[in-house]
Amino acid sequence: MARAAADAAAAGLAGLIVAPGPDLAYLCGYRPTAITERLTALVLGAGREPALIVPRLERPDAEKAPGAPAVRLLDWSDGEDPYATAVPLLDPAGRYGISDNTWAMHLLGLQGALPGAGFTALTAGLPMLRAVKDTDELDRLAAAGGAADAAYRGILEVPFAGRRETDVAADLGALLIQYGHSQVDFTVVGSGPNGADPHHEAGDRVIEPGDTVVLDFGGLKDGYGSDTTRTVHVGPDVPAEVRTVHDVVRLAQQTAFEAVRPGVGCQEIDRIARRVITEAGYGEYFIHRTGHGIGITTHEPPYLVEGEEQPLVPGMCFSIEPGIYLPGRFGVRIEDIVTVTANGGRRFNNTPHELGIVS
Amino acid sequence: MARAAADAAAAGLAGLIVAPGPDLAYLCGYRPTAITERLTALVLGAGREPALIVPRLERPDAEKAPGAPAVRLLDWSDGEDPYATAVPLLDPAGRYGISDNTWAMHLLGLQGALPGAGFTALTAGLPMLRAVKDTDELDRLAAAGGAADAAYRGILEVPFAGRRETDVAADLGALLIQYGHSQVDFTVVGSGPNGADPHHEAGDRVIEPGDTVVLDFGGLKDGYGSDTTRTVHVGPDVPAEVRTVHDVVRLAQQTAFEAVRPGVGCQEIDRIARRVITEAGYGEYFIHRTGHGIGITTHEPPYLVEGEEQPLVPGMCFSIEPGIYLPGRFGVRIEDIVTVTANGGRRFNNTPHELGIVS
Repeated sequence: MARAAADAAAAGLAGLIVAPGPDLAYLCGYRPTAITERLTALVLGAGREPALIVPRLERPDAEKAPGAPAVRLLDWSDGEDPYATAVPLLDPAGRYGISDNTWAMHLLGLQGALPGAGFTALTAGLPMLRAVKDTDELDRLAAAGGAADAAYRGILEVPFAGRRETDVAADLGALLIQYGHSQVDFTVVGSGPNGADPHHEAGDRVIEPGDTVVLDFGGLKDGYGSDTTRTVHVGPDVPAEVRTVHDVVRLAQQTAFEAVRPGVGCQEIDRIARRVITEAGYGEYFIHRTGHGIGITTHEPPYLVEGEEQPLVPGMCFSIEPGIYLPGRFGVRIEDIVTVTANGGRRFNNTPHELGIVS
Repeated sequence: MARAAADAAAAGLAGLIVAPGPDLAYLCGYRPTAITERLTALVLGAGREPALIVPRLERPDAEKAPGAPAVRLLDWSDGEDPYATAVPLLDPAGRYGISDNTWAMHLLGLQGALPGAGFTALTAGLPMLRAVKDTDELDRLAAAGGAADAAYRGILEVPFAGRRETDVAADLGALLIQYGHSQVDFTVVGSGPNGADPHHEAGDRVIEPGDTVVLDFGGLKDGYGSDTTRTVHVGPDVPAEVRTVHDVVRLAQQTAFEAVRPGVGCQEIDRIARRVITEAGYGEYFIHRTGHGIGITTHEPPYLVEGEEQPLVPGMCFSIEPGIYLPGRFGVRIEDIVTVTANGGRRFNNTPHELGIVS
């Protein structure tokens, strides 16, 4: 909390207003049972004692949070104005970073109570708050990646042809749990034309021989995320175009990975992956950014996207996941979690990038 | 969507900006797989075609939503400014109602793109958007209430003494599923001193003979919510003070229920319940509002709370749930879901209010 307040001051902010969700869990370990219309907010500012505003009836829960001894707890009761509790903690002319996922109703309440104050989304004002991981965090992310790799090796052994996507997805989920995940966040099984929709999860489609299948899966292990994608083919024969497209994606992923080193801008990694795919003639079919950060959530800064000039810093962790999606036909994506070291990138996913052949 | 746009105009709003979550599900049936930092928003305005802004890679999902044929789909790609997609749809000097749970980063993005526009939280500007239920919705809420009642009758048959709160909570969850719930949202088992924390869920405490136990449970059945509370005692003997406190809460619940009729202000119901408890000398131990609306979520307007002047309207549905919490000792709460009819209130929970005796 002290580092966050200092970083905020260095970024020209009067302080931070932190909402329930990953920011609050990261900064003081408090995870309310539910995120509701009742205001809960941690207020940080350089040289000020951290203050956690909670609804009175949730105070007993908040008192049990790991970070509770380091904060001043302030409560408000139903029928009172919760923003009036926040006002004395805030500089009426200050500019505050506020958690991206704060409810708009609370931001509007604060804007109404402090018309002279300014607000900036935390990922705009202080995007790298959670982006650089410490040694313990890197160990956990590596372990989560290893568990996801074990799940991938396991899924190569199950039958695909004749089963529904949801059946294979259930197997993937069970494997993630078997290898130590506490929570499965997504198990994408995009077979044949469904693979061309990058956000397709898993449906009733029965997988057929000759299908190309995108497998994208992850969740949380010991509080930190995994997220990996491999593309497999229901063999034994692989059509030439599937082979070609897969080779392009593989080269894009490898080329982008090899460009990772401290000081390179996030958008550069995106541009490098995109250039490989564009030069191969598939640029219009790579319809998403190249990657996203990962930590206590599976989507967070830094984003590897055009316009993101943030330089890479050792300890940052993110996905590199180029893809090609041919509408109505098939898709290919290859994704590893990568961390930045002093010398370059280090992968947390280490299963082969070759097109997996399944039965 | 047309009614919502007309209601917005009648409330002096230029339109509505609807975020993923219950508002979007209610208005156009679209439930994105995940709510993320990528902007998804439905824009409504009187006399305008509804427009749904989605990330390009989620467009295939959005096209499958039940309400998709009635909206114009607009997409934006990673690296583009999503707020630029919204600007042409909005009056630069208009005031918009925006879903309470819209991410603050999106509200800040819209405020930045449209500095002359105004924004109001949807539950402040149009609080009753989802509050008045139609016949189909009332049927579903009644069915959800009936299923929760069946779960309560079932839980009276299980042993309490010697088992952990979490064991009884698991039984409650299994009963809700057995009686048709698709989702269990909460299973509070607050035994002895834990019952004095109204937001305690269920913990490792082993329930003992002589404990008073608060049971508060609910979830979704056919898309609509249940939420009921009964207080039981591990018998056979009931201490006089438990009996007294329970009688006070029961009288408060019944008195508040009998006051329900069209035209009565929400805060009046809260005041009536609170008066009964205060007159009995327990006012300082009733530390939350008397109730909340229920529908496709288990917490929504109308709120029965001091300051809420909204008059009751036939078809509104909400909890009436007074309680008394004696710190370190025990708690008592009785909660029914109630709907407003032309003639008064109708309960969706109909199990006895007597203190249940369990073994």
